[in-house]
Amino acid sequence: MPSRQLKLGANLAGVGNSISFWRHPDVPIDASVSLDFYKKQALKAEEGKFDLLFIADGLYINEKSNPHFLNRFEPLTLLSALTAVTTNIGLVATLSTSYSEPFTVARQFASIDKLSGGRAGWNVVTSPLEGSSLNFGKGEHPNHALRYEIAEEHLGVVKGLWDSWEDDAFVGDKANGVFFDPGKLHTLHHKGTHFSVQGPLNVARSKQGYPVVFQAGSSVPGKELAAKSADAIYTAHETFEEAQAFYRDVKARAAAYGRKPEDILIFPGIGPIVGKTEEEAERKYEEIAGLVTIEQALNYLGRYFEHFDFSRFPLDEPFPDIGDLGTNSFRSTTDKIKQEAREQGLTLRQTALRASTPRTAFIGTPEQVADRIQHWFEGGAADGFNIRTVVPGGLADFVDLVVPILQQRGLFRTEYESATLRGNLGLAVPRNRYTAEREPAR
Amino acid sequence: MPSRQLKLGANLAGVGNSISFWRHPDVPIDASVSLDFYKKQALKAEEGKFDLLFIADGLYINEKSNPHFLNRFEPLTLLSALTAVTTNIGLVATLSTSYSEPFTVARQFASIDKLSGGRAGWNVVTSPLEGSSLNFGKGEHPNHALRYEIAEEHLGVVKGLWDSWEDDAFVGDKANGVFFDPGKLHTLHHKGTHFSVQGPLNVARSKQGYPVVFQAGSSVPGKELAAKSADAIYTAHETFEEAQAFYRDVKARAAAYGRKPEDILIFPGIGPIVGKTEEEAERKYEEIAGLVTIEQALNYLGRYFEHFDFSRFPLDEPFPDIGDLGTNSFRSTTDKIKQEAREQGLTLRQTALRASTPRTAFIGTPEQVADRIQHWFEGGAADGFNIRTVVPGGLADFVDLVVPILQQRGLFRTEYESATLRGNLGLAVPRNRYTAEREPAR
Repeated sequence: MPSRQLKLGANLAGVGNSISFWRHPDVPIDASVSLDFYKKQALKAEEGKFDLLFIADGLYINEKSNPHFLNRFEPLTLLSALTAVTTNIGLVATLSTSYSEPFTVARQFASIDKLSGGRAGWNVVTSPLEGSSLNFGKGEHPNHALRYEIAEEHLGVVKGLWDSWEDDAFVGDKANGVFFDPGKLHTLHHKGTHFSVQGPLNVARSKQGYPVVFQAGSSVPGKELAAKSADAIYTAHETFEEAQAFYRDVKARAAAYGRKPEDILIFPGIGPIVGKTEEEAERKYEEIAGLVTIEQALNYLGRYFEHFDFSRFPLDEPFPDIGDLGTNSFRSTTDKIKQEAREQGLTLRQTALRASTPRTAFIGTPEQVADRIQHWFEGGAADGFNIRTVVPGGLADFVDLVVPILQQRGLFRTEYESATLRGNLGLAVPRNRYTAEREPAR
Repeated sequence: MPSRQLKLGANLAGVGNSISFWRHPDVPIDASVSLDFYKKQALKAEEGKFDLLFIADGLYINEKSNPHFLNRFEPLTLLSALTAVTTNIGLVATLSTSYSEPFTVARQFASIDKLSGGRAGWNVVTSPLEGSSLNFGKGEHPNHALRYEIAEEHLGVVKGLWDSWEDDAFVGDKANGVFFDPGKLHTLHHKGTHFSVQGPLNVARSKQGYPVVFQAGSSVPGKELAAKSADAIYTAHETFEEAQAFYRDVKARAAAYGRKPEDILIFPGIGPIVGKTEEEAERKYEEIAGLVTIEQALNYLGRYFEHFDFSRFPLDEPFPDIGDLGTNSFRSTTDKIKQEAREQGLTLRQTALRASTPRTAFIGTPEQVADRIQHWFEGGAADGFNIRTVVPGGLADFVDLVVPILQQRGLFRTEYESATLRGNLGLAVPRNRYTAEREPAR
């Protein structure tokens, strides 16, 4: 087996991340709140030897939100349920540092890490939606720069709490009544700009040390946070060249923090559409794209721009000038939408339809999709992929048709190497900071 | 079957709520962080047709804390994991209103309620431990009265968020592209003294409407909160007379809020020790009590009194005068400890040993324990019991030896009546407030 292996994640999203996916006859209406649905998807991904599954999140809805966002499981509770019915697959979920307490976040993720025997991962985000602040009684939604400043401190506190107990702290000497060694319990005493947290945490480390840290912002502060403190980064690119440039950028930023390229894994999100023939794949795409109405597409577009109402503009004229709108929400996405509309002279209608059902670069026969994946992986554009289901049965198609090709080519495992997520991703177990202080030479 | 049926809950606590339980040869050292352990206990309780299992919580530890508190699962993640491996049993956990966001609490419990098909319950507490504030960057731990004021507003917000979606809001009309009826989505717009939460919540109601609300404080503000807003109350009493007085008091308080006696269920916590003979039961108690050293007992006692250091006082003189200490933490427990020491002239040593391994009133043969339970249940002292494991195998003993007797006497179910926790507890599904406004006549 070659030394560098592809990593795969399954992005699970009930009735789908695209707005009209739920209308397809094969999609169960209640998929976003069906444990049975998630369990089946998780087991399918595990059958395909995926490294992990991923559950995204959001903290604000209104009547224009995506169907999946309106009524879905809270990610940490869903991950926890899946710990009990899966064996090897990693379990990763989004949680925002802008509207959470580090002590609770550290505890819940550490607990999922223990429940799963070392398979948890935390996707650190800062909440792009302005409306989130309204649900958490904060005055204003912090601006982009401040959110990342908070995120960095928050993540630092969480990692500190995760090290509260050294790995050999629990002695369990029944005869002498010694449950733990007090010298191996550490109190953080963090007092910072945004948080003040004493510790210690009341959960010890797992077999993988602590959860794998993902980061999902592609803006400069997002990349910096990832380069400095994350194990992996989620991103999205339409072209190989864009993905390659992003990959190089992040690896260079990580190197500037003294990290090796393999210390941070880059996972572009892709939505493969696989057919036995090109025509079948194309038909699947058109079936889904045809379910979206222009009203829905405009609403969907508006969501990226702080729920801006685009319906006031003419549909078949050039995409309107909306100034800075969007720079404080999903910044990397809104920048790209505006840029493409300008460069390619798109109308509002074209922009909205494209945003609502992106025509992925990973459409085709199993061989074609495998070729594209191999090209990105070997060409320095990806360490792995976060596979979104964009057509019904998409994950099963990928597992049944594409994974075997990747395995035959020696790019992807045929059995799990490890029982932990870090083990499968080839990431080192982070040493406990206090153990490392005392025994630096190991 | 008689109309009024006994309710049973299993209080699960890994290496145990008593300080030296873990030293017993039959207790696994890692029980508090073993999903396998909790799964087996949950399935045993389900085999015994228990209504629910209960997971307690705490937000602050130091080196003197109970072994179980040092390294245990976070309750909501544990409950979530158990949703996937149980079928009928209710899943209840403690979460503090003093150090949590109503939006997150509403969401996580609603999500557990959906994951479990309507089996979730929330035990509302206000965090007795001063130290909790240190882990959440708050200035001072709020005093007892303020904590209950916060709790009442918090619970009101959570219930409001739980009603965000009417039960028939999700139309799912694929042909016409109508996912939901916007007239059945409601935004709370809560602006109160302690919380400001807009809504709506991004999880809809479950089959039981929303989670069963427990309350666990036995002080006057605790009883008032329960009488007004809870479905059930956890309490602890050593004697029948005490339990009966408490029962009458709570039912009267509920009546003052216009509620019927059966609208609020009272669950004293008991720690049955069952032996085939009285001697065997006694031997089991002594085996456990003998594992506690006096140092451990003093530490344990101190925990109730804001981690007060009792070791500075002589062991064999009367329990010292410590003034008001304890009134801002576990108030009902500390009041009782002080009162008993005074009334019975106990020494510090006696008080500490009694607090660390209480000699439960439910020790004896299966028939004796069943008699006592029947007496409390029929004598107006309990609607059900929260069964703590105080000797290894205690839950299995209860299920195998006591439950069949209760069933034979027609006091307890032989099959679950319902798939939801409310259904099994005989509690009505709360109507959605907006549906009720529109259709009050139903």
